[in-house]
Amino acid sequence: MNNNLLSDFRKGDKKALARIITLVENETKKGMEIISELYSEGNVGYRIGITGPPGVGKSTTVNALLKELSLIDENIGIIAVDPSSPFTGGAMLGDRLRMNNSYDYENVFIRSVASRGSLGGLSAATENIAVLMERFGKNTLLIETVGVGQSELDIMEITDTVIVLLVPESGDSIQAMKAGIMEIGDIFVVNKADREGADRAVQYIKTVLSLNDKKGWIPPVIKITAKNNDNVNELVDSIKEHKNYLKTNKLLDKNRKSRKIEEVENLLRDMFIKNLKLNREKIIKSNESPYKIAMKIMNNIEKVDTEDLWKEK
Amino acid sequence: MNNNLLSDFRKGDKKALARIITLVENETKKGMEIISELYSEGNVGYRIGITGPPGVGKSTTVNALLKELSLIDENIGIIAVDPSSPFTGGAMLGDRLRMNNSYDYENVFIRSVASRGSLGGLSAATENIAVLMERFGKNTLLIETVGVGQSELDIMEITDTVIVLLVPESGDSIQAMKAGIMEIGDIFVVNKADREGADRAVQYIKTVLSLNDKKGWIPPVIKITAKNNDNVNELVDSIKEHKNYLKTNKLLDKNRKSRKIEEVENLLRDMFIKNLKLNREKIIKSNESPYKIAMKIMNNIEKVDTEDLWKEK
Repeated sequence: MNNNLLSDFRKGDKKALARIITLVENETKKGMEIISELYSEGNVGYRIGITGPPGVGKSTTVNALLKELSLIDENIGIIAVDPSSPFTGGAMLGDRLRMNNSYDYENVFIRSVASRGSLGGLSAATENIAVLMERFGKNTLLIETVGVGQSELDIMEITDTVIVLLVPESGDSIQAMKAGIMEIGDIFVVNKADREGADRAVQYIKTVLSLNDKKGWIPPVIKITAKNNDNVNELVDSIKEHKNYLKTNKLLDKNRKSRKIEEVENLLRDMFIKNLKLNREKIIKSNESPYKIAMKIMNNIEKVDTEDLWKEK
Repeated sequence: MNNNLLSDFRKGDKKALARIITLVENETKKGMEIISELYSEGNVGYRIGITGPPGVGKSTTVNALLKELSLIDENIGIIAVDPSSPFTGGAMLGDRLRMNNSYDYENVFIRSVASRGSLGGLSAATENIAVLMERFGKNTLLIETVGVGQSELDIMEITDTVIVLLVPESGDSIQAMKAGIMEIGDIFVVNKADREGADRAVQYIKTVLSLNDKKGWIPPVIKITAKNNDNVNELVDSIKEHKNYLKTNKLLDKNRKSRKIEEVENLLRDMFIKNLKLNREKIIKSNESPYKIAMKIMNNIEKVDTEDLWKEK
């Protein structure tokens, strides 16, 4: 069965990809074996992150991007990260299915992620799905997440180009900026640019960006109207420019390497707590502060030789 | 100096409180000693969390609540959690100062939290400040955070009553619900109820809540217009009812206990990674998946006796 799944996956069977993703998402032993086996194989894709506050039209933009990018690369994967509540969780998948049907690209593979309780959190779950899609042959990944909270913004760290989506209404933009969204964008997009105030929004974003003294890539600010596919080609050009910039400056590889280390750290963090059996009663009854308790526990964990922690036993 | 600070704090010197908070926020050794000493002392407050998507009027509502609650309890603390970007970080504090001046309650203490890189994350930093304010004598704490992302929603776990703020425009509300905000609310508030569609929003929220099959407390849905102090007294009544419900069902204490365990876990998670010296080069060069690497590292960490990890050395 295991072997069949893997060989079906290697033959390009979409159902096998979907099944393996589910196994990995549920952190089954089998899923982890499969992803470990596939990890060293072949294809790596280019990952485009799309984020922004609720209501800016992320799904519509992903849709428009998909249409435009399909002219260049037919083998696209879409990952929608949606840490929804159980009773509204179905909505987004429904949108997706509609979206998928409306264009019917044969090679597009769409997957939602909502496994927020998993080891390493949402980013690790998303990274696993991205790796599986890449090994399956996807060359371009569109990874979409709502961009107001920290966990959601963290997901953008596993992508190569981050698109921050905003709308002409400045209130929204200012609020979004507060949540740290301005620092992570490689490209800024004012969507729904057919509405009033789009030029003012572009100016405002440029001003805020100019306050940032980071060296290197200067994020362009682009107006689009995704629902009419208006100016989406300019957005695609910017993505290409950013990709070239990363390649020329050898940042693509560097970013991917630090991504891997962060992922190992996130997994270790969660595995460590999972393995610890804390004396809950003792903690509750204690008069001591959580910090002091944590310090004592850490002090009692044997300082292992950290020079070569990762050796075969 | 240490002793002076502590005795000034115990005498009720606001400047000493502010200084100690800064020491604790920066995770200085002195700060940790002081909070450990104060931890076992006296006063515990009632914590009210206020969350909601950007633009729903959280600051205005906190302001209105402050005015109303001051009639009952003069000793109120406000904590505004704002994981801002460095170049817009000042805005909120500015708002706060204006807010503070406009009423000038002598006993109100206001503090912003933005230390997102700290051990245990934003919730741990907020918890520390809350504990300090409580030990200082604050009986009621208002803790405000933008509520769309996971880290921000996590902060609500350190409060006793969670108020979820929405506005009549259903688009916003629906989007907010997607992000898991509907599950954490003890009280739902439609602010800006003088705008069109408030009743429809209330109905909509009630419908969504009715899909939830959790037993126990049924969250009320209240219309207010915070900027005119309109109906804020009803909100205060609901807070009192929820507090009574928690007390009657012995949940207040239970929630606080699990809060302490979670905090210890969060701290341990971060301390563990901070202590580990990972062989970064080896991780990068490896063909193995992050999961497999993390598993190997965990296997090589001596399985310590977890029965009584927390013992004096």
